[in-house]
Parts: sequence; C-alpha cells; structure tokens
Amino acid sequence: MKAVVLLSGGMDSATCLAIAKSEGREIAALTVDYGQRHQVEVERARAVARAAGVRDHRVVPLDLRIFGGSALTAAIPVPKGQPPGRGEIPPTYVPARNTIFLALALGLAEVVQASEIFIGVTAVDYSGYPDCRPEFVEAFARLAAVATRAAVEGSPPAIRAPLLRLGKADIVRRGVELGVDYGLTHSCYDPAAGGLACGRCDACALRRKGFVEAGVADPTRYSGA
Amino acid sequence: MKAVVLLSGGMDSATCLAIAKSEGREIAALTVDYGQRHQVEVERARAVARAAGVRDHRVVPLDLRIFGGSALTAAIPVPKGQPPGRGEIPPTYVPARNTIFLALALGLAEVVQASEIFIGVTAVDYSGYPDCRPEFVEAFARLAAVATRAAVEGSPPAIRAPLLRLGKADIVRRGVELGVDYGLTHSCYDPAAGGLACGRCDACALRRKGFVEAGVADPTRYSGA
Repeated sequence: MKAVVLLSGGMDSATCLAIAKSEGREIAALTVDYGQRHQVEVERARAVARAAGVRDHRVVPLDLRIFGGSALTAAIPVPKGQPPGRGEIPPTYVPARNTIFLALALGLAEVVQASEIFIGVTAVDYSGYPDCRPEFVEAFARLAAVATRAAVEGSPPAIRAPLLRLGKADIVRRGVELGVDYGLTHSCYDPAAGGLACGRCDACALRRKGFVEAGVADPTRYSGA
Repeated sequence: MKAVVLLSGGMDSATCLAIAKSEGREIAALTVDYGQRHQVEVERARAVARAAGVRDHRVVPLDLRIFGGSALTAAIPVPKGQPPGRGEIPPTYVPARNTIFLALALGLAEVVQASEIFIGVTAVDYSGYPDCRPEFVEAFARLAAVATRAAVEGSPPAIRAPLLRLGKADIVRRGVELGVDYGLTHSCYDPAAGGLACGRCDACALRRKGFVEAGVADPTRYSGA
C-alpha cells in the first residue's frame, strides 16, 4: 500500500513518516519549498527522507512570499519568548498553508495511486493554527472524497493525522521508539546563519518542552543555550 | 467588498471575472502558471485582467509537471475529435487542480481580506472533471469554513461558482452582455505555435458549441478552419 507523506523537515513530520513506514507503507514524500524564512528545513527534509530510505521524495517550489501575510513569508518579526495566548493565532501562521500542502499531496496521491496521505499536524502542544485542528483534517477528508478521479472511482485517499491528539512529549517518545534521528530535524522559525536554532520562538519552545517532558536528550544546538 | 477571482485565461473565468466586477467587487485576480501545455493561456489571463482594469493580478508559478499524470502536464496525447463518454474522465484532467487552485485562492483571500472567492467551473457543458461538480464546490466551502484565521474569526470567504449550472451558450450570452472580449481568451488544450487553437480538442469543441448555440460570432481562429 502506498502513502504520500508531507515532510517539512520538522520533528512532527519526521515522526509521521516513521509511523507510515512502521505500518509497511511504500512512501512518496512531499516537501514544499515555499520561501519560508527557515529555508534550512527543506535541506533537513531531504536528510530525513534519505535516512528513512525514501526513494520518491519530491520537493515542490511554490513561493508563498507572493502572498506574504505571515512572519514566515514576509518581513514580519517572529515572536520570541512569548507563547501565543489561548485562542490566539500567532503571526507565524501562514494563510492556508496546510490546505495548500494537502491539496498538493492530493494531486501527488492521485498520480502515484496512494491510498493514504499522512500529515503531521497536532492540536495538543501547538501554536493554535486553525489548519492543525481535527475539524480541519475532517473537512479536508470530506473534500478528498469528492475531488479526484480516485474519489469518483470509489477509492479516495484517507487523510491520516496520527499525531493529532498527541502532546509533544508523546511524539518524541513515539519517534524514539521508531528510531527517528531528531538530530536531522529542524524546528526553529528564525534560525541564525547555518541553521542554528534561536531557542526562543514558539517552535523552539514547543520542541524543547517535548524533549524535557519525554526525558529524552534534545540533540538540537540552540544559539541562546 | 473584495473578491479573489481565479483567472485561467479561458472564457469561463473571464466571464466569472466580469460577473464579480458587475457585482461591484474589488478584485484580486489569481492565475497559476502550472507548466500547462497551453502556456499561452497565462498571457491571455494577463490580457483579460488588464482589459477588466484589475490592478491586483498575481501569477503564481507552480510547476505541476513535477507530478505529471495529465495530458496537460506530461507527454500524454490530447484527445482530438472524440468527446469523452458519459461518466468518463478524459486524460486532460489534471489531478487535484481545482483543489490546488482554490487552496491558493484561500491563502490569497486571507491576505487581502477578501470575503469571496470566484471560480469559473461549470458542470453542464464540461469535460467531466470531478473538481468541477457542485459537490466539490460545496465540500471546498465547508473546508474554507474551518481552515483559516478568517474562519476562526467567524468570516470565512464564500466560494462563488456562478457558472456552475450554466451551459456554454448561456455563459457566452452572459459574457457578451457584460462586455467580455472573448477574443482575448484562450481555450485550446493543444495550440500550435503562436497560440492558434486546434479546433478539435474537448476545450475547442465546447467553446465552438457555445458560440454557435448562443448565435454569437466566435472570434477564435482555428487552425483546422
């Protein structure tokens, strides 16, 4: 059975890839090079795919800086040391990013005849992005059920989000069990030259919390540490 | 009120743009340069936007030849003189194209704070593409209602498909009423050098039928005519 796995180069999607592999899926990995501030994650995605023995890894250039509207794709500062308040959507939110990524994954799934699409979203220790919530994943699955040739023929791909209800520590534990090398992954939204993590943005904060709570050594080097 | 209009350079999206304008909308037009065989349509989209006085027209490069899987994005022949059978999806179908286009439009709508997204799909005189059907448009609207910051804040964009239940002749009549210059538009999937329409692919066949049935002179030059 074939699966498309959305792979950002971060720890969640690397874990998601390991889960898909552990279920015996043949993988087509998909990374979107969207002009993100933390461009280094695209290279990390390549390393993660290589380490997992993925032979079909497509990196699609799609420059979302044409739209802007996010701290990751425009000249808007990345907040440091101030986690978003409850119900607040931080400026690192990229408009419709996961809708766009899943739409591309749906196209690739149709071409490679994959029966599943994996996306590493979580709605537990997360930044409050609307497109990481269960209702978003469910709505996309309902869209996928009518959108493609496969859908018309009665076999739309399932949308799998195996981390959706896991906290960051659970994700780390699951990944360590499955042999994920988190040293290859990158989370920081605002890395220094060379990809060194800032240690203070939301993505760094969530990552650090995960490793601490899981009791696992964090292989990341942080510039502030 | 602002609206994002998906603009391909074909007759349907040009009509759709004219409808949005006739309703007094301020327009942000979006064209995807996806590596399509009929690349000329991107230039036609620019001409249509210019003629309509659209000041915000974004052309997003997104090379879907990375996926292939369609006569429009891979070395697969475009069928000529043989309309698809009932319920058959022809090889010119591009996997998940309208899902991808609407996902991009959703991102742009969020950034420019548009309250509507217009897409010129029709499910009457059409090629049987799954992502032109009413159930697809409805499922995307339900996705848009949970996917973005605007959705969380209670004002997701509406998905407008004003041509959905119009035949090609009705589209031509409506466009002529609204002053659309169809001479600027391009439909052919497999044009000769210079953009000359083949006259025999599904897109040409549907276009010709529309003008004949509407009793309007077709400004298109066809290579076979």
